[in-house]
Amino acid sequence: MSIADIIGYTAGAITSLTFLPQVIKTWKEKSAKDVSMLMFVIAALNEVLWIVYGILLNNWVIIATNAVVLSMSLCMIYLKLRYDRNNGN
Amino acid sequence: MSIADIIGYTAGAITSLTFLPQVIKTWKEKSAKDVSMLMFVIAALNEVLWIVYGILLNNWVIIATNAVVLSMSLCMIYLKLRYDRNNGN
Repeated sequence: MSIADIIGYTAGAITSLTFLPQVIKTWKEKSAKDVSMLMFVIAALNEVLWIVYGILLNNWVIIATNAVVLSMSLCMIYLKLRYDRNNGN
Repeated sequence: MSIADIIGYTAGAITSLTFLPQVIKTWKEKSAKDVSMLMFVIAALNEVLWIVYGILLNNWVIIATNAVVLSMSLCMIYLKLRYDRNNGN
């Protein structure tokens, strides 16, 4: 495995967890007023595109990475809907 | 260009703009209390990794896409620092 491979896999692994701190923060604070719904809707739709791309290329790294990001985006959409309604935003 | 290529380029283009709605929302509402700083710090550091990866592979699509996401992440870090201080968070 080359240095480029190692950097690529590391970056890919971190990318898949980028939304996690936001999910945890929103879950703990029960508020998502300042969080952009549009960002997570675009991200979720785009992850579906990435997963289709991964399927067409039969590339499981792309499929798995984007499935993780998709699940976190859907989590954030759910939390945003729930807390915005609870908080009357 | 195959269908897979078209889907891949489309997904890549959308990915580069994922953070834009958050930057615009935060800029307009001048509040980022509910936004996770850690998410954007991780994203920014990770974009640097991706750019290094793009340089090692001499792949300008990876370099350009991630340079856009890096600039938006840095924008969000700046806006978060600024508005959290202004709003006393």
